[in-house]
Amino acid sequence: VRAGIIVTGTELTSGLRQDRNGPWLARRTRELGLEPEQIILVPDRPREIAGALSFLEGEGVQLIITSGGLGPTADDLTAQVVAERQGREMTFDAELARRIEEIVAPLRERYPGIDAAALEAGTRKQAMVPEGASILAPVGTAPGLIVPPAYGETPLVLVLPGPPRELQPMFEDALAHEPLRALLARARPRCQATMRLFGIPESEIAQTLRSAAARGLDLAELEITTCLHRGEIEVTTAYPPSAQERYSALAAFIAERHPRELFSTDGRSIDQILAELLAERGWTIATAESCTGGMLGARLTDLAGSSRYFRGGLVVYSNQAKEALAGVPAQLIARHGAVSQEVAQALANGARTKLDADVGVGITGIAGPDGGSPEKPVGLVWVAVAAAGESGAPSVHARSASLPGGRADVRERATTLALHMVRRALPGAPRR
Amino acid sequence: VRAGIIVTGTELTSGLRQDRNGPWLARRTRELGLEPEQIILVPDRPREIAGALSFLEGEGVQLIITSGGLGPTADDLTAQVVAERQGREMTFDAELARRIEEIVAPLRERYPGIDAAALEAGTRKQAMVPEGASILAPVGTAPGLIVPPAYGETPLVLVLPGPPRELQPMFEDALAHEPLRALLARARPRCQATMRLFGIPESEIAQTLRSAAARGLDLAELEITTCLHRGEIEVTTAYPPSAQERYSALAAFIAERHPRELFSTDGRSIDQILAELLAERGWTIATAESCTGGMLGARLTDLAGSSRYFRGGLVVYSNQAKEALAGVPAQLIARHGAVSQEVAQALANGARTKLDADVGVGITGIAGPDGGSPEKPVGLVWVAVAAAGESGAPSVHARSASLPGGRADVRERATTLALHMVRRALPGAPRR
Repeated sequence: VRAGIIVTGTELTSGLRQDRNGPWLARRTRELGLEPEQIILVPDRPREIAGALSFLEGEGVQLIITSGGLGPTADDLTAQVVAERQGREMTFDAELARRIEEIVAPLRERYPGIDAAALEAGTRKQAMVPEGASILAPVGTAPGLIVPPAYGETPLVLVLPGPPRELQPMFEDALAHEPLRALLARARPRCQATMRLFGIPESEIAQTLRSAAARGLDLAELEITTCLHRGEIEVTTAYPPSAQERYSALAAFIAERHPRELFSTDGRSIDQILAELLAERGWTIATAESCTGGMLGARLTDLAGSSRYFRGGLVVYSNQAKEALAGVPAQLIARHGAVSQEVAQALANGARTKLDADVGVGITGIAGPDGGSPEKPVGLVWVAVAAAGESGAPSVHARSASLPGGRADVRERATTLALHMVRRALPGAPRR
Repeated sequence: VRAGIIVTGTELTSGLRQDRNGPWLARRTRELGLEPEQIILVPDRPREIAGALSFLEGEGVQLIITSGGLGPTADDLTAQVVAERQGREMTFDAELARRIEEIVAPLRERYPGIDAAALEAGTRKQAMVPEGASILAPVGTAPGLIVPPAYGETPLVLVLPGPPRELQPMFEDALAHEPLRALLARARPRCQATMRLFGIPESEIAQTLRSAAARGLDLAELEITTCLHRGEIEVTTAYPPSAQERYSALAAFIAERHPRELFSTDGRSIDQILAELLAERGWTIATAESCTGGMLGARLTDLAGSSRYFRGGLVVYSNQAKEALAGVPAQLIARHGAVSQEVAQALANGARTKLDADVGVGITGIAGPDGGSPEKPVGLVWVAVAAAGESGAPSVHARSASLPGGRADVRERATTLALHMVRRALPGAPRR
């Protein structure tokens, strides 16, 4: 069962705002066994909404989901455009109007100056629905709709409001309503699995997939997507339950070929893995960051419960701060430069000592666009991780990387690199 | 001149990743006077890419911009699908192949185990281009293309790579190339102006716009979009140059109504404004962050040149770190709790003193989802700014906010709030 998504909003097509509904709907429909094929963003205008509906129908999708354009004002026209496209008249639903009136009643009390006539016109407008459509109870003030075509069975159009906090619960509610339920019963739920690797280029994973095929692995029905995200390679595979063995064989093949680079086989991010590793071992971590300016600390505290393992951090942007806060000797900076193995190690040690943590991480680098030199170009980053060694004595591991991209990319990748170095440094930590 | 955007990527249509290129391209084309109408996300499959191209052609757009599918592997098919659609043969460009070879050469050194045959096949593939297309120099390894139709003049297809750091500079480069240059010459550039406000709800600005109309301001041809972003309201207006006076009148009306909330009338972000204010005055800043874990430091160092004013920061997630690093008295935390006006002020003072900065910022709050209580619910944040007062003696200003949303929202908004508090604290700083 193939599906298409239409998200309306002039603020989206003009690039002023990022759409969140398209990805959410795509993820949910995919989990339900549908194939989301297109996500189309169009302005809030009947002509473009109708054009997108007609395009998706032409592409042969069985389900179209729309988001937005259900508000109380006259320029919210999605329901009407969908009705027309599906060959249905708009009719007034008195029962629905009463329900919306109840919902908006408190507004009159909260805002005594509110325009009562406008409010009533809005209620009336929102209670106009395509004849024969299933009505989904409003979460805000707008009802959702399931609109089957007047002739034929598909495409079914599921009409949802734009605000994510209304759209999401209403989508879940819609699943139980006919005729969507009947359509979903025909869908074949698929499994989806994600492997994540760090430290190889995207071309290398493409090569691995080719080798898998060349070695005779059967990849039929495995829909494999690879993508590079924050310096990590994600290999996501969707497949029918019947192809589980084939997927397991592929996963084993990738694991065998990239034992060091593969770090996640169950969808967990490096952030989650690291959080769990640290919490499991009861270890604490502290940071001393120069070029990343606090990004590593921010990522380590992204997840709830991070206070269990994150002690704190030092943002030592100036050399003076490196000396005063992290205890980096001034001569070390003078001799090797602020971006050097020696200073990265001193930062890691300083973070560990000053914050009394089990693990210390130091980052120093040239994020650019200025500050590069022939020996130390923009993108050069040194990262060090200090931890207790096997014997109990502290051990520091450092490495450099030449990171591509602009200032923001270099900073983000340096942060990711640091997370992976910590993962590898945790003694006895499984490689994946 | 109307334009449509096609972004390819199965990871996008399945909701695994959020698209960044569509909004960016929409914004830029709009600035150039084009009308971006649709943004279509399709999987990396020839059938769907061709379908989207044909749909946009049917909608009558004069320019189609594609993003993605230019990689070295056999399943990157955008160039070929566009060539077919435009009625052009694919040909091998030997000069381009040499250029790509030079670019990928360093990969062989960086990854000694890399598959040389695959690398060569990739180079050859990326050097296949539609006959008669203009070639845009690779930023990564993939060249971009401007592909005119074999017959007729439109639609012109601009083919760009997927990674934003390749797409963005290549788009700028493309503007100077024929036949895109000729097409742009026909566009009617529109002015676009953005006002940014902080500290009012979105409904309030809608009310202001209604009042403007009610007071008789002529808003004809002003295309106004308001949107809420990281806790700030953005009012973006697109208009023809002939409507400049009407826009100025509207801008003055908004400025008069929201003198304290309006902070930017020239498109600058709070980050840029703050950076310039600090640099202008020669002031330095330092941070002590609890719940934001380094996000404020990260934002203050986002912009190049931030070393001029950013001294450094303390990420004091644990109480122990608050005491040891920022010098917050243990009794203060015991008496008032870690999330309190007193502790926020002590953090601001601590940051200022320990890092020897002119301005110190302290943030402490409950980002959730756990840790809330009836008196101090999730979302409660205290922010303090310490600076030299008028008399020279230090002065600390603190305020609390109840921030909506999930953990990530609370952290992001707390960071934004802190930036605005610093802006307001800078003595003599203009309000906008």
